[in-house]
Amino acid sequence: MEFKHVVENRRAVNFFDPDKQVPDSMLKQMIEMAALSPSSFNLQPWNILVVKTPDDKARLRKLAFDQPKVTEAPVVLILLADRLGWQGNHPTFEKNFSEMQKAGSITPDKREWLENVTQNLYGASDSQQMAFACKNTGFFSMSLMLAAKSLGLDTHPMDGFDHEAVRAAFNIPDQYWIPVLLAVGYFNTTMTMGPKKWRKTYDEIVVQF
Amino acid sequence: MEFKHVVENRRAVNFFDPDKQVPDSMLKQMIEMAALSPSSFNLQPWNILVVKTPDDKARLRKLAFDQPKVTEAPVVLILLADRLGWQGNHPTFEKNFSEMQKAGSITPDKREWLENVTQNLYGASDSQQMAFACKNTGFFSMSLMLAAKSLGLDTHPMDGFDHEAVRAAFNIPDQYWIPVLLAVGYFNTTMTMGPKKWRKTYDEIVVQF
Repeated sequence: MEFKHVVENRRAVNFFDPDKQVPDSMLKQMIEMAALSPSSFNLQPWNILVVKTPDDKARLRKLAFDQPKVTEAPVVLILLADRLGWQGNHPTFEKNFSEMQKAGSITPDKREWLENVTQNLYGASDSQQMAFACKNTGFFSMSLMLAAKSLGLDTHPMDGFDHEAVRAAFNIPDQYWIPVLLAVGYFNTTMTMGPKKWRKTYDEIVVQF
Repeated sequence: MEFKHVVENRRAVNFFDPDKQVPDSMLKQMIEMAALSPSSFNLQPWNILVVKTPDDKARLRKLAFDQPKVTEAPVVLILLADRLGWQGNHPTFEKNFSEMQKAGSITPDKREWLENVTQNLYGASDSQQMAFACKNTGFFSMSLMLAAKSLGLDTHPMDGFDHEAVRAAFNIPDQYWIPVLLAVGYFNTTMTMGPKKWRKTYDEIVVQF
């Protein structure tokens, strides 16, 4: 599908066809495309909890302002932003450091240097850890939504949920923030999609100080 | 350009051709495509400071670990994530509330309700304000990178800069966090692009607890 068509036709769909499943192979394809997103020092501080069973979706819906799309969509992804993904003892940091050596872009003696850089950029405060995790997982989430559309799927990114209750109900470790829930499926064609929402213009986006 | 081609060929390019300019019309097109990104309650808490003059790029480079791409790229975008974009007195909140009424999706008496919802979801702590701003601006930034590639442009998202020094040097108000600097231009074809970096597999991304 043409990129422009994907971008212009991606909508946050409110009504999903509960009878149209998303095959696992398609979900995998969508996630693998999004995995190509860039990240700070290639640390990829994102994970996904896939919610698919009627029981799990019902539990999640109760914690998400009872939004019907949580149970109507065949799949809901709980996006996880890893606030500690920059730390020297984190598995992704380790993998990254080892892959960088294989690629010849760093030498083993630079480990302390790399640890100090990521500590200073992302670990200096709670706010910086949050910024690191949510910015990068934001990249990944946007890619997921566009990749889904390119495969003919629809999505809806959701903010309306009780963050701590979802964390508790799904045993999500403290190091993760949940930036968004993403409903994935097919638009219910018996419903009518509302008009497109307004967007800021170029002149409203570009500022000068 | 095919979506899959865009995603697979977007790279964080290290070498920009300093002689190949990005026409203003193309930059506008890129930003307008990215403006279609979704956001929490459609609040679009993102802005851009466009850095183009040799003087401004030189000032920015000094604050960004002296990375040559800051001055070699014809354009560097300073992405701004608005931590207060959910507040009831914010211009975007006001515009949004008015556009929602025009679209018939909210009634004027729901103003206090909407203010309370956004306050509770995004304004409850510094961390939540940061998560709101960086997640949404993350969506927007990813769309910018892909939109650029779809137009034949290359980009490089940069984290390596002194956040508070850039804020001071470019008079950026306190309400903004700077999640990323984005160099935009054309790859310098006299240079060689390194091999693609490793990415987490599907099984490394999808977790269970």
